[in-house]
Amino acid sequence: MTSPARRGQTKVPIESPPPPPRVAIEHVTPGVDGGRFPVKRIAGETVEVQADVFADGHDVVVATLLVAKDGEEAWNRVPMRHLGNDRWSGVFKLGSVGCYRYAVAGRVDHFETWRHDTLIKLEAGQDINVELEMGARLLEEVAAFAEGDDAAALRAAAAALRAPSDRQAVARQLQDEAVAAIMGRHGARFETSSPKLRLMVDSSKAAFSAWYELFPRSRAAEPGAHGTFRDVERQLPRIAAMGFDVLYFPPIHPIGRSFRKGKNNQVVAQEEDVGSPWAIGGPEGGHKAIHPQLGTLADFHHLVDAAKEHGIDIALDLAYQCSPDHPYVREHPEWFKRRPDGTVQYAENPPKKYQDIYPFDFETLAWRSLWDELKGIVDYWVAQGVRVFRVDNPHTKALPFWEWLIAEEKREHPDLIFLAEAFTRPRMMARLAKLGFTQSYTYFTWRNSRWELTQYLTELTRTELREYFRPNFWPNTPDILHATLQNGGRPAFMARLVLAATMSANYGIYGPAFELGEATPREPGSEEYLHSEKYEIKRWDLGSPASLEPLITAVNRIRRENPALRQTNDIHFHQVDNENVIAYSKRSGSNVVLIVVNLETRWTHSGWITLDLASLGLDGVEEYDVTDLVSGARFRWRGDRNYVELNPDVLPAHILRIEHPRPEPVTQPIQQPVAPWQEPS
Amino acid sequence: MTSPARRGQTKVPIESPPPPPRVAIEHVTPGVDGGRFPVKRIAGETVEVQADVFADGHDVVVATLLVAKDGEEAWNRVPMRHLGNDRWSGVFKLGSVGCYRYAVAGRVDHFETWRHDTLIKLEAGQDINVELEMGARLLEEVAAFAEGDDAAALRAAAAALRAPSDRQAVARQLQDEAVAAIMGRHGARFETSSPKLRLMVDSSKAAFSAWYELFPRSRAAEPGAHGTFRDVERQLPRIAAMGFDVLYFPPIHPIGRSFRKGKNNQVVAQEEDVGSPWAIGGPEGGHKAIHPQLGTLADFHHLVDAAKEHGIDIALDLAYQCSPDHPYVREHPEWFKRRPDGTVQYAENPPKKYQDIYPFDFETLAWRSLWDELKGIVDYWVAQGVRVFRVDNPHTKALPFWEWLIAEEKREHPDLIFLAEAFTRPRMMARLAKLGFTQSYTYFTWRNSRWELTQYLTELTRTELREYFRPNFWPNTPDILHATLQNGGRPAFMARLVLAATMSANYGIYGPAFELGEATPREPGSEEYLHSEKYEIKRWDLGSPASLEPLITAVNRIRRENPALRQTNDIHFHQVDNENVIAYSKRSGSNVVLIVVNLETRWTHSGWITLDLASLGLDGVEEYDVTDLVSGARFRWRGDRNYVELNPDVLPAHILRIEHPRPEPVTQPIQQPVAPWQEPS
Repeated sequence: MTSPARRGQTKVPIESPPPPPRVAIEHVTPGVDGGRFPVKRIAGETVEVQADVFADGHDVVVATLLVAKDGEEAWNRVPMRHLGNDRWSGVFKLGSVGCYRYAVAGRVDHFETWRHDTLIKLEAGQDINVELEMGARLLEEVAAFAEGDDAAALRAAAAALRAPSDRQAVARQLQDEAVAAIMGRHGARFETSSPKLRLMVDSSKAAFSAWYELFPRSRAAEPGAHGTFRDVERQLPRIAAMGFDVLYFPPIHPIGRSFRKGKNNQVVAQEEDVGSPWAIGGPEGGHKAIHPQLGTLADFHHLVDAAKEHGIDIALDLAYQCSPDHPYVREHPEWFKRRPDGTVQYAENPPKKYQDIYPFDFETLAWRSLWDELKGIVDYWVAQGVRVFRVDNPHTKALPFWEWLIAEEKREHPDLIFLAEAFTRPRMMARLAKLGFTQSYTYFTWRNSRWELTQYLTELTRTELREYFRPNFWPNTPDILHATLQNGGRPAFMARLVLAATMSANYGIYGPAFELGEATPREPGSEEYLHSEKYEIKRWDLGSPASLEPLITAVNRIRRENPALRQTNDIHFHQVDNENVIAYSKRSGSNVVLIVVNLETRWTHSGWITLDLASLGLDGVEEYDVTDLVSGARFRWRGDRNYVELNPDVLPAHILRIEHPRPEPVTQPIQQPVAPWQEPS
Repeated sequence: MTSPARRGQTKVPIESPPPPPRVAIEHVTPGVDGGRFPVKRIAGETVEVQADVFADGHDVVVATLLVAKDGEEAWNRVPMRHLGNDRWSGVFKLGSVGCYRYAVAGRVDHFETWRHDTLIKLEAGQDINVELEMGARLLEEVAAFAEGDDAAALRAAAAALRAPSDRQAVARQLQDEAVAAIMGRHGARFETSSPKLRLMVDSSKAAFSAWYELFPRSRAAEPGAHGTFRDVERQLPRIAAMGFDVLYFPPIHPIGRSFRKGKNNQVVAQEEDVGSPWAIGGPEGGHKAIHPQLGTLADFHHLVDAAKEHGIDIALDLAYQCSPDHPYVREHPEWFKRRPDGTVQYAENPPKKYQDIYPFDFETLAWRSLWDELKGIVDYWVAQGVRVFRVDNPHTKALPFWEWLIAEEKREHPDLIFLAEAFTRPRMMARLAKLGFTQSYTYFTWRNSRWELTQYLTELTRTELREYFRPNFWPNTPDILHATLQNGGRPAFMARLVLAATMSANYGIYGPAFELGEATPREPGSEEYLHSEKYEIKRWDLGSPASLEPLITAVNRIRRENPALRQTNDIHFHQVDNENVIAYSKRSGSNVVLIVVNLETRWTHSGWITLDLASLGLDGVEEYDVTDLVSGARFRWRGDRNYVELNPDVLPAHILRIEHPRPEPVTQPIQQPVAPWQEPS
């Protein structure tokens, strides 16, 4: 980039354009696939952007971070700091939810180069009269482009450089940061910039949420009756008291009759069978209708409002598929594939046939009207007050559809949350998150050993995934009753709850099956529940003394009270001698929580933890206190080696807050914490 | 992408365009900065391209690698193979030197999906009459677009599916790969593709070369005389016999008189001082002229031709800078920066001044004529038969200039080799290689300990650098006499030679200083030679009995004879108990070479190597032979642990070829190899 000042006095023919910029800008982080997809952040967070910025030779290089929210016309400019080795860093604080763009700009700064070189020559006692004239000309060249006060200040500075003065006065002039700032501002037009990158700013619930899933139809007070939204509303105080802030329902729409599945997924249903809520659509309506036995739209509004008063968002299931009885099948045959015999193509995974489900044909010639209608479903429920959607099997619908749908929805409602329920191959899981899903189900359910958990969390939090894939950990779902829970009894439920809730800032349980320890599979080797709620109405004894409700309540309270647990990525694993025990810490500023879990829940395990003290912000010299956040007990620790012993029948986990070193001595050995609802064994 | 066949029989309004493609293509490797820069390869090599290619649902996905040389109008199509986990691989063999483009294309294959699903249904004994009609329609839809034999074959296949036949005949029809191939060919129009990536194919010498640098003016037969090209020509047999194939000269142009540097870089030269060849330009001419004392252009042509007969390329020094006496300074003042006092801006690094050197102003308004003239210099010497250029300090010239220059030159002469002499920060070193430099000087000279060498080679060969940065290792240069050589004596020269020549397929020495073990610094702590050839004519005693010529000859012969040493990236380090000994292997197909070097050259070191046998292609069960390629001795080894002992005064290195296991037993302990030119000590 030719600075006008570099033209000097030589007479040359004017040539244009100027030469390509000398500055190279590389490796801008964070970024997903070179800016093709947005990185995800939360409103109010600070973001650090780094880049390699450099040029040939010894000239001074200046790097600037450019940030703008979609709709803003001008870049916000953030000066970047040189970290060394050509790496630069710029930090900015995010405003409200929405889409942002950012880029890194750089330029060779001829004025700063001149300042730097001339100061050195001055200090070396060299004659700098020629240099001062060069500086004056640099100032005047920019003054010619500047206006008002800027121009006046630059002309005055140029005149001062030319005025006879002693070397000390010259040194002061060279160090005049006000003049340098004006020159810097006007230098921006010589910048070159990196490609633009994208950033999606979500609401805080996108990054920190506790989900509770239930089947409304199982919530009736009367035995045998079909539960209603009113029944669910009566559960809100209990769910809020447990500490959940998202209440998710399987589809609430009319259920098809054709090929309805019976109890335990039997191919032929009995007359009284209620069917699967995912077989959406019947004579009563489709995706915008409510199953009549659940209540009316007014009842739903009432429930949504009541939940909001408890700080709870109602999450709906977005299952884009139809029962054969769905009105779409008659009204929009062009949205389905038709077989040569004139029938509609049902779902299949040959040789298996799922004749109760008609998938949409995302490649139909009528795709535009189909996509618009599917968006219309979201629009409809957003209009009813819904802000959170759990999306059923997104990996079996066309990928570009999701990118379009979520971008359109978030443009209008940037606070919406979409949870991808894709239990599939890693690339697809990642792609859905890139395409816009706010949160994602994970492999957590199948990661149970220490090695599996450590590897998986490392992948989620130490690779590019951390920038766009927000995990939501579920120890169980209506589809997945893992062998760990089937065989591990109550201790396994406790351990898996603590792991899910402390490893991932977003987590959820399918209740009341979870808190009541429901663990019977449909048959040996199956991950399906026996008498699954997916196909029948169940009754749950919420008052059972074995309920994990108190522990769940404690864990959710601990999550809320500790910023370290309100984020996912800052997790650090610590060595434990006993391979059945896992230890990891999370940190947010001065808040540091250490979690220790016995993964082998049949008997007590003990072992020595070797803490990585630096990761905890400890110096290894001073003593420090740890508070067991479940029992409230407080202990004084010293150094990096500490003994733990975890009895799974009491509680197979510690959740310990590391306290700042305190002066007063408290000597007490670390011991098994006593859960507040239980006597020590 | 809507396959016409998916439209079925449903009557719907025609909508366009079709929906966005369902296939995602990610993480295409190799690639440099998403295709912004080319990866580098050698003519005749095979290249493996990998990518993640996947789509929603269970449909069959097909991935194809597209390759084209610049100038070719159509893509060459290479079917890709699914490696698992959505990763695909395609391999193609490169043709001649030049620029290539490649991309990965993918599509959902509705015909293959139908074949796959229908076969499963057939095997499961299901009624597939409707499926056969679906297949017939898929065939007919494509037949409508196809022509000639293809169309006929598809229509015949459709008719066959509709004809009544037994299930075995249907199975045969479903497995008809000829029909599937036609469908596959015509499916290409539904593809989507990744961004295009670039590939630069160089001549084999770009990847495997041995450089010898000398100052022609020091080659006179008469003491005190100025050497000539004729004198150099007489050295060609010796240089060729040593095994070098690039002979590089410092600048051969007229040398400036103004501010000429004296011996040992003194600021004031004596009348008889010959000056630095890098102070280019005098009354006799500039970058296109030859220093009169070296000879005529005809002499140069004669030398170039004679060298070619010895398999040697003459490499010239491309130093884009001028002495104050260069004709450009008078004729093109617009190419230089001018100070306000009317003088030309000399080179400086404040407070240091280099008044004998005028840098070009790459940002001059007249940059186009400057850049054209600088390209003209390359054009000129290419016209004189030069194919190899060593570029002086490219990191102090505008980066975009290099990208333009090298691209332009290689478009016309794709076999040209440009070696970047940038000893600077890592990002800049990498950037220059990205911009097109064929080879690069490295930090090898300053990497001497085992840890340093292992780290550096790992960085060069295991990161993205391997795709575009071709190292050229030099144990010494006229500018760098490292402390290792100053203090290590002859053993250090031997060790550094073996390291340079076996770690990097491209290497070079500055001779005869190297083979004669010249090791005296200008002053303690300096990396400059005392009485550096840069500033004076030197005489060398090539017949010295201490000369390393025999070892150099042996090492270059071993390099030529072993494909493992003709490449850089396939290097593997092995554990050695003694931290003063380094062991690494290189492998190319069945050729495996193991190098062991004593890095502490004051005395004998011994130790146990633990070989990673898998990396050597050995199973650890069978015995295997190793041949010392310097001494010719052959030993039988077994297992992964072997003892080595290296006496630096004999030869501080083994270069061992691992032989395929042979049946006949040879029992002989491993022992210090005897260099062929030396008696055992």
